[in-house]
Amino acid sequence: MKVVVLRLGHRIFRDKRLTTHICLIARALGANSVVFTGEEDNSVIESVEDIVKRWGGPFEVKYEKNWRAFLKKNSDLELIHLTMYGLPYQDCISEIIKSKKDKLIIVGSEKVPSEVYHYAKYNLAVTNQPHSEAAALAIFLHELFEGKELDKKFNDSELKVIPNKCGKTIIKSK
Amino acid sequence: MKVVVLRLGHRIFRDKRLTTHICLIARALGANSVVFTGEEDNSVIESVEDIVKRWGGPFEVKYEKNWRAFLKKNSDLELIHLTMYGLPYQDCISEIIKSKKDKLIIVGSEKVPSEVYHYAKYNLAVTNQPHSEAAALAIFLHELFEGKELDKKFNDSELKVIPNKCGKTIIKSK
Repeated sequence: MKVVVLRLGHRIFRDKRLTTHICLIARALGANSVVFTGEEDNSVIESVEDIVKRWGGPFEVKYEKNWRAFLKKNSDLELIHLTMYGLPYQDCISEIIKSKKDKLIIVGSEKVPSEVYHYAKYNLAVTNQPHSEAAALAIFLHELFEGKELDKKFNDSELKVIPNKCGKTIIKSK
Repeated sequence: MKVVVLRLGHRIFRDKRLTTHICLIARALGANSVVFTGEEDNSVIESVEDIVKRWGGPFEVKYEKNWRAFLKKNSDLELIHLTMYGLPYQDCISEIIKSKKDKLIIVGSEKVPSEVYHYAKYNLAVTNQPHSEAAALAIFLHELFEGKELDKKFNDSELKVIPNKCGKTIIKSK
């Protein structure tokens, strides 16, 4: 199952760190790539590519100017929009896991165009409280991959952490 | 079980949105309060208090100048430090749930002082990959509360979302 994350409406000044976090969450928790729309921002791409270079891949991040065209081009993917206004994800997650279709998970920033709610097969909430698209994405991926993403292996990494009870152990393998 | 989140090393310019997200994640996913250290920042407190006023509580956010003093004062709490260098959280979570002790969950920003690793009873990783303290906190709280946090009710809210399959339904109750 391939999972692409679409981050809508990136704003360079306001969202730089959050969009970068969203990319790193997607990578660490089993997604294959992030596509972001809104303002073009090479610094996000550079930060994420630097992490992939050092910590391993494969993982891709791309900018896409036209999100409508992107959605149309990817209409074969099962479209899941994470929103605090949606249905509880826990009511649909088994069905989504079972379908085994490749997924496109959409997370917005400030305001998501109402069209997105209509394009989506699922509009799903990780609680109906205001919190964070980063947290919603993390919990959703964790549930989608049923915890197996925690053991994901990365290829061609320069750095690797050895779990430590009290401190930091990093191995440089290149 | 009471859960306090300690956000270390807040920097006004760089961390404003992430620290606010951390507070909102803590609130939405069942923690009782957030204490943040580093630079004093009333705008974080105001943003979070505004959410509590509109979306309900109880939930507290406070600034604390001296994190060492705060840790000493709260040494009765079970101290869990989330770090990508730690042991896999999934190896300890049952033990932590069983202990039923009140918890202090620490999330850092850029660099966490090595003392924190020694103070902590548990240094735990939500994957050993670099991603986001917001995601680590969200998944850890979700596992700690075993999904029950998703149904948490809030008191005295002005606003409430009614889950909607395709759109937004908000009720104003005050």
